[in-house]
Amino acid sequence: MAEDKIYNCIVLGAGPAGMAASIYLSRYKVEHLIFGEVPGGQVVDAPVVENYPGFTSISGADLAQAFRGQAESYGVKIREEMIGEIHKKDDHFEVKSKKGDLYKAETVILALGARHRLLNVPGEDEFLGKGVSYCAICDAPFFKGKDVAVVGGGNSAVATAIHLASHASKVYIVHRREEYRAQPYEVEKLRSLQNVEEILGNTVKKIQGKNVVERILLAQPYRDKTELSVQGVFVEVGLIPASSIAKALRVKMDEQGYIKINSAMGTSVSGVFAAGDLALIPGAIPLRQVITSAADGARAASAVYQYLHQQHPTPDWG
Amino acid sequence: MAEDKIYNCIVLGAGPAGMAASIYLSRYKVEHLIFGEVPGGQVVDAPVVENYPGFTSISGADLAQAFRGQAESYGVKIREEMIGEIHKKDDHFEVKSKKGDLYKAETVILALGARHRLLNVPGEDEFLGKGVSYCAICDAPFFKGKDVAVVGGGNSAVATAIHLASHASKVYIVHRREEYRAQPYEVEKLRSLQNVEEILGNTVKKIQGKNVVERILLAQPYRDKTELSVQGVFVEVGLIPASSIAKALRVKMDEQGYIKINSAMGTSVSGVFAAGDLALIPGAIPLRQVITSAADGARAASAVYQYLHQQHPTPDWG
Repeated sequence: MAEDKIYNCIVLGAGPAGMAASIYLSRYKVEHLIFGEVPGGQVVDAPVVENYPGFTSISGADLAQAFRGQAESYGVKIREEMIGEIHKKDDHFEVKSKKGDLYKAETVILALGARHRLLNVPGEDEFLGKGVSYCAICDAPFFKGKDVAVVGGGNSAVATAIHLASHASKVYIVHRREEYRAQPYEVEKLRSLQNVEEILGNTVKKIQGKNVVERILLAQPYRDKTELSVQGVFVEVGLIPASSIAKALRVKMDEQGYIKINSAMGTSVSGVFAAGDLALIPGAIPLRQVITSAADGARAASAVYQYLHQQHPTPDWG
Repeated sequence: MAEDKIYNCIVLGAGPAGMAASIYLSRYKVEHLIFGEVPGGQVVDAPVVENYPGFTSISGADLAQAFRGQAESYGVKIREEMIGEIHKKDDHFEVKSKKGDLYKAETVILALGARHRLLNVPGEDEFLGKGVSYCAICDAPFFKGKDVAVVGGGNSAVATAIHLASHASKVYIVHRREEYRAQPYEVEKLRSLQNVEEILGNTVKKIQGKNVVERILLAQPYRDKTELSVQGVFVEVGLIPASSIAKALRVKMDEQGYIKINSAMGTSVSGVFAAGDLALIPGAIPLRQVITSAADGARAASAVYQYLHQQHPTPDWG
């Protein structure tokens, strides 16, 4: 199916950045579509969010639902379709869904977020869903009374370990450095837990088992052994920006695939804006929190509004 | 009273930027004080906020209270004291309250916000929230099918009139000069709209009504009458950044008094950061919403954390 209509904007991604962009586009009366395979994005997997200003404590799923309900209150429906490709054609952009539908828009906001980085060790792939997980909120209940390892040292790794500690019998956190990148408040919380053991300056070399995970092999001995008996491995070693779809647009990226934007949320391609985890303002602190993604989504919407305004002295959408 | 203790950070201002900064500083375990004469800041005056992602509709006062409760859940108390002066002394900053108390900190986050420039006419104060508004993006939807006046002639006034035209039945724009200060394309767009009437070279003398706004009185007759029936008055005659206290710190400002910051929230003075309505990132779109202030407050907290971290390779606060 191909719609002839040219929308003012298409938002790719329905996490906090995309949904905030949609809320603001609606308020600016910018006619748009929003696509998101996983409405809510990564935050859906967060057991508890305590750092989004306005909510002292809320589950990630509930926060995502609050964003979604608000975005849809303006009449916009989030399309849970996978996007196959996007390219520029004459004075507009064409977005093709994986099932072949074609949509057109004058501007695009890239807000596709990021995916979990893989550990890339033997056994990770083999035991996916059989003890290896990238989502503690989804899988923690399966590890009641069991021993698990969390791999990583950033905010998500530490939050994951804290969450798992209330389900699992024992939680090991394995981090390659001697210090965490996580916020100290979280680290302190982690260290107050009786059933958490820290294995710092060490890495996981292998995940082993018969049908399900039974143990991990460490690069360095821990308590004189390199073998650690666990039934679960939660991988939290960082993010990969979901920017591959933007390559066809030739937007400038850094070597890790983050899309470079200026302070006005514009990419190197006119009419293409970016916000959230896949975007990078040179010189800015890459905080990558729900609050910063949401703000940048709102800013991108504002930038789109201004861009459309300049392009069309007498637009038909105002 | 003078405390000898040198805090890690002092946050000046307890609006969304200051409170989000405090939440994040607490999570970073950065020991800090937060001062705010009016906890909540400008948002407290908003009858309804529908553009803060996560809350489809909430009163400004309730949203401010949610921020405050969250900030205080970490044990921080917002000090409702007026600040008299602030200056740099050796390797730290000294903040003196109006009643004479002295506080010291290694870093400062300036988050004092901005005030809307007032029209200074009778009725403006009385009808605040009852037809008088300083924020079209917040309040436009309430004026569906009604007649409103926008006062001002700069970019925000014209943008406000354009925005309102898609909600209100009729929009008058009243500007004291014969020509707008707004960019020509904005004006052209304004003039293409069927439901906008321009009243140039004229001023509003009075805002009147019974319980809510019913009319404005003009200084000069318009269509033979000085009385104009409207249900809303949007005052867009500029903002005044509350940055005067920062002059003694010699942070760089633009000619309007906005504090210049870089993408990492730093001002021109080492150890001094700024966020929210009084801050200006060159090249950025000055959106000035609750969501952007909160995000920038969080970013400033992160910047402070990194600054302190660099200063102290073996910090005692982490």
